[in-house]
Amino acid sequence: MNEKIPVAILGATGAVGQKFVTLLADHPWFEIAALAASERSAGKKYGEAVRWIDAKPLPPHIAAMEVLEAVPGIRGAIAFSGMDASVAGPIEAGFAKAGAVVVTNTRNYRMEQDVPLLIPEINSDSLSLLPKQRADRGWKGYIVANPNCSTIVLVMALAPLHKAFGVEKVFVATMQAASGAGYPGVPSLDLLGNVIPKVEGEEEKMERETRKILGAPIIMSAHTNRVAVVDGHTESVSVGLKIAATPEAATQVIQNFRAPPEVERLPTAPCPPILVHTTGDRPQPRLDAGLGNGMQVSVGRIRPCPILHLRFTALGHNTIRGAAGAAVLNAELLVARGQVPGVRSPAS
Amino acid sequence: MNEKIPVAILGATGAVGQKFVTLLADHPWFEIAALAASERSAGKKYGEAVRWIDAKPLPPHIAAMEVLEAVPGIRGAIAFSGMDASVAGPIEAGFAKAGAVVVTNTRNYRMEQDVPLLIPEINSDSLSLLPKQRADRGWKGYIVANPNCSTIVLVMALAPLHKAFGVEKVFVATMQAASGAGYPGVPSLDLLGNVIPKVEGEEEKMERETRKILGAPIIMSAHTNRVAVVDGHTESVSVGLKIAATPEAATQVIQNFRAPPEVERLPTAPCPPILVHTTGDRPQPRLDAGLGNGMQVSVGRIRPCPILHLRFTALGHNTIRGAAGAAVLNAELLVARGQVPGVRSPAS
Amino acid sequence: MNEKIPVAILGATGAVGQKFVTLLADHPWFEIAALAASERSAGKKYGEAVRWIDAKPLPPHIAAMEVLEAVPGIRGAIAFSGMDASVAGPIEAGFAKAGAVVVTNTRNYRMEQDVPLLIPEINSDSLSLLPKQRADRGWKGYIVANPNCSTIVLVMALAPLHKAFGVEKVFVATMQAASGAGYPGVPSLDLLGNVIPKVEGEEEKMERETRKILGAPIIMSAHTNRVAVVDGHTESVSVGLKIAATPEAATQVIQNFRAPPEVERLPTAPCPPILVHTTGDRPQPRLDAGLGNGMQVSVGRIRPCPILHLRFTALGHNTIRGAAGAAVLNAELLVARGQVPGVRSPAS
Amino acid sequence: MNEKIPVAILGATGAVGQKFVTLLADHPWFEIAALAASERSAGKKYGEAVRWIDAKPLPPHIAAMEVLEAVPGIRGAIAFSGMDASVAGPIEAGFAKAGAVVVTNTRNYRMEQDVPLLIPEINSDSLSLLPKQRADRGWKGYIVANPNCSTIVLVMALAPLHKAFGVEKVFVATMQAASGAGYPGVPSLDLLGNVIPKVEGEEEKMERETRKILGAPIIMSAHTNRVAVVDGHTESVSVGLKIAATPEAATQVIQNFRAPPEVERLPTAPCPPILVHTTGDRPQPRLDAGLGNGMQVSVGRIRPCPILHLRFTALGHNTIRGAAGAAVLNAELLVARGQVPGVRSPAS
Repeated sequence: MNEKIPVAILGATGAVGQKFVTLLADHPWFEIAALAASERSAGKKYGEAVRWIDAKPLPPHIAAMEVLEAVPGIRGAIAFSGMDASVAGPIEAGFAKAGAVVVTNTRNYRMEQDVPLLIPEINSDSLSLLPKQRADRGWKGYIVANPNCSTIVLVMALAPLHKAFGVEKVFVATMQAASGAGYPGVPSLDLLGNVIPKVEGEEEKMERETRKILGAPIIMSAHTNRVAVVDGHTESVSVGLKIAATPEAATQVIQNFRAPPEVERLPTAPCPPILVHTTGDRPQPRLDAGLGNGMQVSVGRIRPCPILHLRFTALGHNTIRGAAGAAVLNAELLVARGQVPGVRSPAS
Repeated sequence: MNEKIPVAILGATGAVGQKFVTLLADHPWFEIAALAASERSAGKKYGEAVRWIDAKPLPPHIAAMEVLEAVPGIRGAIAFSGMDASVAGPIEAGFAKAGAVVVTNTRNYRMEQDVPLLIPEINSDSLSLLPKQRADRGWKGYIVANPNCSTIVLVMALAPLHKAFGVEKVFVATMQAASGAGYPGVPSLDLLGNVIPKVEGEEEKMERETRKILGAPIIMSAHTNRVAVVDGHTESVSVGLKIAATPEAATQVIQNFRAPPEVERLPTAPCPPILVHTTGDRPQPRLDAGLGNGMQVSVGRIRPCPILHLRFTALGHNTIRGAAGAAVLNAELLVARGQVPGVRSPAS
Repeated sequence: MNEKIPVAILGATGAVGQKFVTLLADHPWFEIAALAASERSAGKKYGEAVRWIDAKPLPPHIAAMEVLEAVPGIRGAIAFSGMDASVAGPIEAGFAKAGAVVVTNTRNYRMEQDVPLLIPEINSDSLSLLPKQRADRGWKGYIVANPNCSTIVLVMALAPLHKAFGVEKVFVATMQAASGAGYPGVPSLDLLGNVIPKVEGEEEKMERETRKILGAPIIMSAHTNRVAVVDGHTESVSVGLKIAATPEAATQVIQNFRAPPEVERLPTAPCPPILVHTTGDRPQPRLDAGLGNGMQVSVGRIRPCPILHLRFTALGHNTIRGAAGAAVLNAELLVARGQVPGVRSPAS
Repeated sequence: MNEKIPVAILGATGAVGQKFVTLLADHPWFEIAALAASERSAGKKYGEAVRWIDAKPLPPHIAAMEVLEAVPGIRGAIAFSGMDASVAGPIEAGFAKAGAVVVTNTRNYRMEQDVPLLIPEINSDSLSLLPKQRADRGWKGYIVANPNCSTIVLVMALAPLHKAFGVEKVFVATMQAASGAGYPGVPSLDLLGNVIPKVEGEEEKMERETRKILGAPIIMSAHTNRVAVVDGHTESVSVGLKIAATPEAATQVIQNFRAPPEVERLPTAPCPPILVHTTGDRPQPRLDAGLGNGMQVSVGRIRPCPILHLRFTALGHNTIRGAAGAAVLNAELLVARGQVPGVRSPAS
C-alpha cells in the first residue's frame, strides 16, 4: 500500500469528532484529509476551533488544518460523521447524494429500512442493502450507520447467544458514562456522586436497534442510567432464550465467538471480539473499557437468571466501540470489500 | 414524658454504629446510655476510639463517653446492634438471652423463622413471632432485625403494589452507594470513576429477604452494582403482577400508601412513606436520598415494562432508611406497643 | 413580630437564586414575596421555570408562585440578587435608584468605593458608606454586596489574625467546588476524576476583595483550582504577619473570634463564626462544609510556615457562607440596624 | 542486543509493584525474572496472589509465575523495590549486601547521605556516591532511590529554573491522586466528592528531598492535599529566585530543558522531559498525566507571583513518573553506564 486513503470528518469539533481524529490520526489505511464543522468553526484552525478533551494529545499537523464547512465536495473518499443529530440528516443525505460514502455515528438514518445498521462482527450481510438504498434514493454514494453506544455493547454480548440459542427476551439496566452525552454534555452538578436514572430517548433506541441488528422480534425492557464514569458503559443484562442454556454453555459460546475472517483481518477489529471475565467483580469500566484499544467488549458474571435464563454484566467503551471506533471498523469493511469507489483495498 | 429511655449501641464505632449515634443523639424518646465496641476500643473515650465519618458532628457529650465491651449487663433498655456480622451472632444472642431487647441491623438472624424481619410500614404483624422466639430459645429478651439496605428500598416500593395487585416477579439492578460497605469499605481506587458489578452476597439477600417480608414466593432476579455515590441506593426495577396494572394505577397505589396509624405516629416514620416523583430524571441519590430525614423512599419513572408489567426507579438512603434509621423505627414500634420490658410508651 | 418582611429574589432560577429560595423559605424574619428572573422564565410558575438542583426540596407554595420580570416595583422590602453578572449591573442599579434595598451576591458593584463589601462579623462599619452612596448616585435605595465565595472563606480565617497580628502577605491555593460555577456550570467531563487549575477571574477577585474588606495593602498570591467536590471550597493558606505568632497563639485568636454582639444575635449568624479543627486531616468539604447550617467557616492544620509565618487549611460552604447565606446575613444586619425603609427590626 | 536483562520485582503484588510489572512486561531491555512478595503470597501464582488494579491487563505469562519470598539470591541483575516502607529497609539492605543492584521507590534510604536520590534528567552526577556507599557499608551491591511522587513532579519543574535563575523559596500546594496511597489506600468514603487536606509525612518529604536533589538550601513551604483523582498529582507552585525572571523567560528555560544526552537516549526517557502548556486551564490530570507514557511532567499557567517571583501549575503521573517509571529510568541509566555487574549496556 503506497498511499493512505483520504477521509473527511464531519462534526470534527464535537466529542465523537475528536475521537475520530484520535483514531484516524494513526490509522494504517486512512489519513485525515478534511475536517468539517459548523459555520461558527469554519475557517479557523482546528486547534483553535476545538476544545480538545481527549487524553491523547491533538497531533500538531491536525491542529494546523483549517476547519471547512460540511458541504459535499470536500476531500475524502469516506465521510465519517459525528455530527449532532439535530443537523446531521440533510447534510449526510447531501453527501451521499453527491457520491460520498457516509459512515455515520448519528442516529438519523439508523432505523431506515434501506440503511445498514452495521456491526461487522455480527451483520456484515446488511451491506447487501446498499444497491437498493442507492437506487431508491437516487444517490451516487450511500450511508452506513453504526448503532447507539449502549446498543452496541449489548448486541455484541447477545449475538453469540442469539446464534446459538435464540434470544427472545432481554432485560437490561445500563450505567452509562458521561462521555456518551458529548461535550459539554452532563453538568458536573448532576453527576458528581450521583446517578441520573434517565438517558433521554436511549431506552427506545436500545429496544428497536437491537431488534434490527439481530433481525428478530426480541422483547426488550431497558432501564438507562447515567453514572459518574468518564468512559465505558456497564450493563446488567438478563436474557431469555429459545433453547435453554447453562452459564457454562453460554460462556463457551461467547468465548468462541469470532468475527468472519474478512472482518477479523481488519486493522481495528478486536480479537476476540468479546472477552469473558471469570473473576467475580469484573468487568469494570476503569479497568476494562480500554481493552482491545477500546474495541473489545467485556462480559462477566455469567450466571443463571431466576426469571429468564441467564444473567451477566456487559461492558464496552462507549466512544470507541460504541461510536467512533465502530464507524472506523465499518469503513474498513467497506474498503476491504471494495465498496468505496476509487479505492483499492489495502487488505487485498 | 419525663425521662428518656436509655439505650445501648453495640458496634458503636463502625459506620452503622456512628449513624445510630447521630440518629439517637437527638431522639425525642431515646438517649444513649452505653456505647459498646470491640476490645480494641473498650476503655477509650468514644471520641478517641472512633474515626468519625458522619457530616453531622459528633456531640461532645457522646465523644466523652467511655466505650464499653459488648457484654450483657451494660445499661440500656434496648440494644441497637450495628456490629460486624462476623462477630454479631453470639453477642446478640447473649444479650437476648440475658433479657435485652436487641434491635439489629446485622444479617445474622434475619432469615431465622422466629425472628421478625421488620419494616413497620409493611409487616408490623411479624412481631407476633416474638413470644415463640423467646419460648423456643429460652431467651428473656428477643431479637428483631431489619432487612438489608438494598432490600428495604426495593420492598418499600413493592409493598403497595403487592397489596393491590400481587407481585409475582421482580427484576432489580442496583446502583449502590459506598457507605453501604461500611468504613473503610471500598477502596477509592475501586470506585472513583468506576462501577463494580458485584456486591458480595447481596443478590441472595435481596431475593430471600424480599420473599420473607412480603410473605410470598416472588421470583426474584437481582443484579447488584456499586457506584461512586456516597449515600443512596438507586434501583432499576421491573415488576410482574398477578393482576395487570397501568403505570397510572400503580402511581396512585404507591402515592396513597400509608403506614398503619400506630406506625405513622412514630417519631422517625416518614409520611408518606414513599414519594412518587413525576419529573423524568428523578429520583437521584444526591437530591432525594435525604428526603424525610433519610427515611422516605422515592419512586420515579413508573412506566410499562415490555417483559413484565411495570418498570420504575426506586431510591432510598442506605444507612438511614436502609440501616440505622430502620432499626430506630423498629425500636419505636416496640416501645409504642409496650414490648420493651420496664418501659412505658411515650406515645401513650 | 407579627408579620414577616416581604423580600424579592432576582435571578431566582439560577443556582444562587435557588439557594436564596431554600434559605428564605424557612427564614424567621423574611418571606419570599416575589421571584424574578429572565424574560424567558417570566410568566411561568417557578416550579416549571426552574431546574431545581438543591437537595432540600422546593416548597410547593414557592413552586406555585409566578416568576416575574426583574423590574423595580415588584414586591419586597429587600431585593436579594443572584443574577448573572452579565446582566445584573443595570438591573440592580435600577432597583436601588427606585428605592430598593439591593443585597447582592454578584460581582458588579463589589469594588465600587461607595459600596459596602460586607461580612457582618468583620466589617459592619462598612455600612457607613451608604449615605454617601445614595447621595452621590441620587439613589433612593442602595446596594450592599458580599464578597466572592473563595474570598469569604479566606477572609473569615484571616480576620482574627489580622486584628491580632496584622496580615501582610497571603499565599492561597484553592480547591473549589463545582457549585461555585453555577448551573449548568462545569461539564462533568471536565471535572470527573480531574482538577482544573484555573477558575476564570477568581485570583484577581480574591486579591482585590481581600484588601478591600480588611482595609489593608495585603500582598496576595492566589492559585485557584476546581476539584470534583459538590459544595465547599477548601483553601491551603500561608500567612505573613506584622507581628510573628505561633500556631498556638493563632489558634487561640481564631477560636476566640466572635462577631460583634449585634451580629451574633442575627438568626443566620454562626457561633462561633470559625471552628478550629484539631485533628490532623480536617477540615474536609464532605464533613465540614455544612457546619453551622453552612455558615461556619472551618480552619485546621494550623502550623508554622517556613516562608511566611503560618500555614493552615480553611474551608467554607461556597453557596451558603460564600453566596446566598452571606447575603441573607447582610440583609439581617441591615434590618437589625433599621436601615431598611419601612421595616422595623424583629430583633428590637 | 540478544538477550534481555533479567530483573526482579520486590513487593510485586502492591500498587507500585503492579506498575513495575506493567512497565517491565514490555520493556526493550529488561525482562521479569522474579516476582517477590510477602510470605502470605509466596508460593502462589502471581495471578492468584495479586488483586490486579491496573487498566493494562496482566500478561498471562506473568500471571503464571510463582511468587517468591523476597530473599537475596532470587534471579535478576536488578531488584526493583516497591515494597512497603515498613518492611523494606532490612530487605533492601540484605539484597545490596549480597551484591544486588537495588533500585528502590521506597522512602527508607532516600535521605541517607551515601544513597543517590536520582532523577536522571537532573542529578545523574549523584551516582558518584556509589563507590563510597559500597565501601562504607561493606556491600557488594548498592541502593539507588528515586524521590517521593510529589517531589519528583515539583523538582522536575524547578530544575530548569534552578539552573538558570537559582531557586531560593518554594510554596507548593498539592492535589494528589488516590493511587499515590497504594491499594487499598484511601477509603472511598474519604475521597468521593471530598478533599483530604493532609497526606501523612508528605510535606516533610517534599521539603527535604527537594533540597537533597537540587543540592541547595531551598526554603520550602508545602501544603499536601488528597483529591478525587485516580492518577496524576497537580501542584500549585510559587517560586522565589536568586535572579528575577519573567514568565516568558521561565517558559523558555523550561521548554528548552533537556536531559543529558546519555539520559535522553534511554528507552523510558520522555523528550522533552517537561511540556509547557500555553492554554489557560491546563495541565489537568485526566488529560495530561499520561503524556510521554506517563513520564513527561507538565507545567502550565506560568505567571508572576506577587509574593515570590513566579506562579505556575505542575503535573505528573504519580505512579509512573513519580514511582515505578522513575525507578525504571534510574535502572536504565545504571545499565547504560555499565554499573550493573555482569550486564553489558544494550545502548552501547
